Formats: sequence, C-alpha cells, structure tokens
Amino acid sequence: MENPSSSNIEKLQQDCYHEWMRLQAKRMTDLKQALTNGEKNDDELRELIETVIGEFKDYAGKRSEQSRRYSSNYFAPTWNTCLENALLWMGGCRPSSFIRLVYAMCGSQTELRLANFLRNDNLDGLSMALGETPGLDEAGESMSDLTPEQLYKINELHLKTVQEENKLSKQAATLQEDTADMPIALAAFYKEEIGEADVEVESALDKYEANMARILTEADKLRLTTLTQVVEILTVVQAVDFLLAGKKLHLSMHEWGRLREHRRLESCGGGGDPGGEFSGG
Amino acid sequence: MENPSSSNIEKLQQDCYHEWMRLQAKRMTDLKQALTNGEKNDDELRELIETVIGEFKDYAGKRSEQSRRYSSNYFAPTWNTCLENALLWMGGCRPSSFIRLVYAMCGSQTELRLANFLRNDNLDGLSMALGETPGLDEAGESMSDLTPEQLYKINELHLKTVQEENKLSKQAATLQEDTADMPIALAAFYKEEIGEADVEVESALDKYEANMARILTEADKLRLTTLTQVVEILTVVQAVDFLLAGKKLHLSMHEWGRLREHRRLESCGGGGDPGGEFSGG
Repeated sequence: MENPSSSNIEKLQQDCYHEWMRLQAKRMTDLKQALTNGEKNDDELRELIETVIGEFKDYAGKRSEQSRRYSSNYFAPTWNTCLENALLWMGGCRPSSFIRLVYAMCGSQTELRLANFLRNDNLDGLSMALGETPGLDEAGESMSDLTPEQLYKINELHLKTVQEENKLSKQAATLQEDTADMPIALAAFYKEEIGEADVEVESALDKYEANMARILTEADKLRLTTLTQVVEILTVVQAVDFLLAGKKLHLSMHEWGRLREHRRLESCGGGGDPGGEFSGG
Repeated sequence: MENPSSSNIEKLQQDCYHEWMRLQAKRMTDLKQALTNGEKNDDELRELIETVIGEFKDYAGKRSEQSRRYSSNYFAPTWNTCLENALLWMGGCRPSSFIRLVYAMCGSQTELRLANFLRNDNLDGLSMALGETPGLDEAGESMSDLTPEQLYKINELHLKTVQEENKLSKQAATLQEDTADMPIALAAFYKEEIGEADVEVESALDKYEANMARILTEADKLRLTTLTQVVEILTVVQAVDFLLAGKKLHLSMHEWGRLREHRRLESCGGGGDPGGEFSGG
C-alpha cells in the first residue's frame, strides 16, 4: 500500500517494537547457547553474529519506513517504560553506550581474573591471570583478552561516535528551536482561539515530524554502524559475548523499568502485571 | 510530610502540571487584557510581569521538590502529547527558544510595518513605518521597536544560553552512557533471569534518577534565568507582548498535539475529546 492510514501506521510501529523485543529474547538464548555449548566453530558463530546484525538493520529499515509521517511516537514511545524514555537518545540507546559496554565487560573480567590470581597463588591462578584459560566457556570471559590494539581501535571509535552523536543532537536542537519561530509561534500568537486549526501550522508541524524522522533514521544508522564496527574489532567469541551483554542489558532495563513502575502503582492500589514479558532463563 | 509515598508523588506531579496549565490560561487572558486595555501604567504592567515570573519560579520549585525521587516521569511525561514530548529538552522547552520567539516576533512585526508602508504611500503609512504608532495597542506591535542595543543584548544572551544548554546536555549524555557500565550492565549480564531484582541495580537506578532530577532542576533554573533576562532587556510593553506570545505558544502546542493525536485515533474509531482543555478566547 502506498498510503496506509495513520492508524495503521501507529499500530505497525507498536507491533514492530514487540516483534523486535521477542526476537531479542530469542537471540539472547541463541547467543548464550552458542557460548555455553563451547562452540569453537568460528564460522557458525560468525553466521549468528551476521544474523543478529542483519536483524538490527531490518528493524532500523522498518522504523525508518514507519516514522516517515508520524515520527513523534518514537521520541517517547508509549510502549517504553518511563525509565527507558528517560534514557532515550533519538528514539533509542546512545551509540556510544555500545562502547561503554565493551569497557565495562573488559574491566570487570580483568578484575575478576586478578581476584582469582590473588586468591590462588598457584600455577592455575597464574595461568588464568595470564589469560591462558582452558576453554573460554565462562560467559563474558573473552572480554578480558582485549589486546592493546583492540582497545586503541575501540577508543578511536568512541571519539568518532561521540562526535557523530553531537552532530545529530545539534541538528535536533535547531529543529526544536525552529518551532518557536515563524510560522508556528506567530500563528499561535495571532489566533483568537487556542489550538485553532491552521493549514500553515499543520504543514510546519508535518515538516517538523518529517525532519525528526530523518534524524531518527540517521541515529539508527549510527547505532548500526557503531555496532558493526565494534563487532569487527572484536574476535568472534568476544563479539558473541558483547552482543549477548547488549541484548541482556536492553531486556533487563525494560523489566527493571516495569518493576519500578509497578512498585509505584502498587502502593496506590493500581496493580498491573508484575510478571516479565521477556524473562528468559 | 518528610517522605510522601511514591504514589502520592506521581499524583502530585500530574496535579502540579494541570494546575500550571490552568494558571497559564488565566495569565494569558490577564496579559491580553492588560495590552488591549491599552494600560499605560508601567507599574501595573511591571507588577503583572513579576507575578508571571514569580509563578514560574514557584512551579520550578515544586517540580524540583517532586522530582527528587522519581524524575523519570518528567523526561517524557504521560500528561504531554507525543508532539510535545518530541519537542522536549530536559523536561521542558529549550531556554534558547525564548530568544527565538523574540526574534520571530520582532521580524514579523517589522515585515508587517514595511508591508503597511508599501501599501499606503501616504503620511499615515510613513509614520507607521517610522514606528510612530499612536497607541501601541496592536498585539505584538511593540516588538518591532527593539533597538540595536536591545538586539545586541538578546544576541549575547542567546550565545550564553546555548552554551549553558550544551553543558547540561553533555552532563545528561554522560549519565545516560553510565547506565551501560557497572554495576547495571554487569548485573544484567550475570543474572540468569531477565529483570531479576538486585539491590545494587536498584540503588544505581535510584542514583541515576536523582542525578537526572538535579539536571532537571538546573534546566528549570536556566529556563527561569533566560526568561528573566529577556524580560529585563525588553521594555515593559514588549515584555508583556513576549510573555503573552510564550504562553499562547505553549498552550497552542498542547492543543495542536491533541488534535493531531485525535485525528490519528479517529481514523481507527478510537475517538476521544477533540475539544480543547485550555481554549480561551
């Protein structure tokens, strides 16, 4: 259909999100399985990584398609929790948070390894401290093996990503400021009735939404590029660990947000379903 | 009460907003009245301006008080329309948009005056073009009389305000990135169950909300300072025109957002009340 009605678009946006979250939960299980099975076949792991990234690309494509007319929904989606919306940057996570996640995983694993070494002052402990782990089957463990070269590349990517984020933030700021200018501000001033319809205002607001849709698409592109580049810097096992951590963080934040909201409602008798949507084992 | 329950806080936040919007509608009428009555008594106008600014200060104070524990609500409030939330910067309008509004008003009035001059090549037209209007009782007209000195000061304020906005945006970006770090990201990674409760995560999320509350308070302070400084640069009649334009823009945007949402729901049989909340004549 060339021109789906607006109600269809709103429904499509929401369905698209729920479908995406279901897929996230499924892929989380797949990634975990691949690691705990101790799959050493790099080709298989690589295939899984490509699938995961391809799915993100498809999702971004759908969002771009669906936001073209009604982009406002994406900047504080009703399907998100308050907590998630307070964390939102251009309709999603900050691309730079992917990199922070790499640092967090790397730092924690190095700490863990050091703690193990100090606890067991024997050869096993030493070999662990030197990264000579026998099977790499502990979740996340691969991240402590980041080489100085990898860390350098990750840092370069961080700086570049923050710059790109700032560019998009600036564009959005200008668009936001523009709404306090002609024709919107003036129409508001000269109308006798508040909210009186006005063709020029409607067209200016449509244009604002279209411009914000363009920025949303750019932001999704930046998220995709950053994700792809992080994965390219990592080894395949590290990439699987990293993608798993990302999916778990996203799904957990949604659930923690729900729990916090539930707790607030509970105390005034509102209730709701405290059971998680995506609580995979 | 030292520790009102969270449900009370949520209700208070919403009530506080509705009370504020009612007050906006009332003050809009008062400001309009003061202008159309052609009140030349600067003291009376000045008193009205002080009242309006004082009320904004009170509102900011209440928000600061009420956001201390649950600030997430303010970053994409459920009481706003999607359109308003897509325009939000730190729980409100961009302080720099106050300045854009001054420029918009000034530019449109100058255009109007020039058009009048070109239309009536007589003495009346000439005197209007020279700003020698007899009564200044046309809404907004005072804004075309901004002196070069006033415009210079407004421009200085614009630059300073954008710098302050950027500082706060940067602080919020850092806080957002931090949630992809320890302890939140790691707890998410090592939990077997998605969304499993965790004292350390809860405390980190509480800290995040408290930090965002601090930024919200800073942003409200910046909005207040900018508003106050714009008013100080303007003459009293200009200030009344400007405050009236600001209130009309805020109230209109809320109504236009409602109308756009209604139109989307209408097409799928949802309905709702298309009548405005604050449609003052």
